Amino acid sequence: MIETNNSECNNLPIFGIRPIIEAIESGKEIDRVLIQKGLRSPQFSELWHLIKEHQIPFRHVPVEKIKRLTSKNHQGVVAYLSPISLSTLDQILPTIYESGKDPLILVLDRVTDVGNFGAIVRTAEVCGVNAVVIPEKGSAPLNGDAVKTSAGALLRVPICREKRLRDALQQLQDSGIRIIACTEKSDTHMYQVDLSGPLAIVMGSEDDGVSDYIMEMSSAKAAIPMLGKIGSLNVSVSAGVVLYESLRQRAVGESAIQ
Amino acid sequence: MIETNNSECNNLPIFGIRPIIEAIESGKEIDRVLIQKGLRSPQFSELWHLIKEHQIPFRHVPVEKIKRLTSKNHQGVVAYLSPISLSTLDQILPTIYESGKDPLILVLDRVTDVGNFGAIVRTAEVCGVNAVVIPEKGSAPLNGDAVKTSAGALLRVPICREKRLRDALQQLQDSGIRIIACTEKSDTHMYQVDLSGPLAIVMGSEDDGVSDYIMEMSSAKAAIPMLGKIGSLNVSVSAGVVLYESLRQRAVGESAIQ
Repeated sequence: MIETNNSECNNLPIFGIRPIIEAIESGKEIDRVLIQKGLRSPQFSELWHLIKEHQIPFRHVPVEKIKRLTSKNHQGVVAYLSPISLSTLDQILPTIYESGKDPLILVLDRVTDVGNFGAIVRTAEVCGVNAVVIPEKGSAPLNGDAVKTSAGALLRVPICREKRLRDALQQLQDSGIRIIACTEKSDTHMYQVDLSGPLAIVMGSEDDGVSDYIMEMSSAKAAIPMLGKIGSLNVSVSAGVVLYESLRQRAVGESAIQ
Repeated sequence: MIETNNSECNNLPIFGIRPIIEAIESGKEIDRVLIQKGLRSPQFSELWHLIKEHQIPFRHVPVEKIKRLTSKNHQGVVAYLSPISLSTLDQILPTIYESGKDPLILVLDRVTDVGNFGAIVRTAEVCGVNAVVIPEKGSAPLNGDAVKTSAGALLRVPICREKRLRDALQQLQDSGIRIIACTEKSDTHMYQVDLSGPLAIVMGSEDDGVSDYIMEMSSAKAAIPMLGKIGSLNVSVSAGVVLYESLRQRAVGESAIQ
């Protein structure tokens, strides 16, 4: 993946092969790596393998570009850490019920487009969502572009990146949170689904929607009504529509609105 | 503006300076123009002036690229017509009431981002919106990228491009259609605004929202409630949320849903 965005200066850079390997192996989220053109060495091969394995965005640049960034021994590589701090459900769940309000969690089942991901997290922040849960593999990159399209929301909403989404959903259910799949493959309109109470709303991937196993785990499948011929919405629009329907139902419950 | 999309093959090309000038002057919507690198001539200057004046996307290409497209006398220029057919409110309004349903019109007051524009038109199609009204100047380009992000909806929903948005809104009001501005600069939540009946919903630009003169012309200003700190949504998400609230209110009126 080639990144052309020049937002590196916002993040702290790490120089040298070993420090970058350690950052990746300790689970730090890397925004992107700049690699000197033509770089070859056994040590670099190890880093290169990790970059591919973790699908970290990278760019090949002339050595002059790296020299402009540092006078240190860079060994031909610079990495920028992601400005986003990740959480896990283990850390977040105990605090969520403390607020006294019903939890509202958004689960993104393989949303890969960085623009969609950013817009969804922005909407989540605006809707007071407690946490956004994503799987470790097959999600949009958590980089500067995502922060930008989220209007900064990615620095405010807790993002829980979970190894296995199935386990995370089970954990949510065990905590008394209902799973609602937002899908067009349902005859039940979202208006007919109870979207109040402790809830985790699942949005599916741009390609094939919510996974089958999640559909089976869900206590309800909510469809957004569609009148036209196209029959599907952009996932960031769908997320906004269903989150606001949930807010409306909650507010009706509290008699704040009619 | 430089276009890198290669969707030209979907549209019919026009070759030669005079035919392209005539297409522009007759009001045809041009998707993009390919110009042979280094092209200079008094005749081309006239076309170049029109391209700049109408803000038509263009790209400089090697002459070989144009030669591959045609063996005709291309004079160094190729234009692709936009696949979108434009309408006017004059053409659309008489037919809108014929359906027997209350008109629902979406007005985009200077939405400039092609991704937002496409996503909004897609949502409009899905929501059964009768027409999308845009101003002649300051709107997103009606090109292949817009068609793509709209998932083809731009070829289905009538797009009315109006010289003066103020006159278009007056025309809508004169036809018995209420103007509703969707804006965060209002204390009235969308739930408290009557969004049923003959309606034109106005979404504002990404930069500064709905224009002051439109705020004054509106019979109501509907705010989407916001709980977080960020305080604003992506305009394509906002459009989806407010259109679906309108659909919900209409359906409640028809007792189709609770």
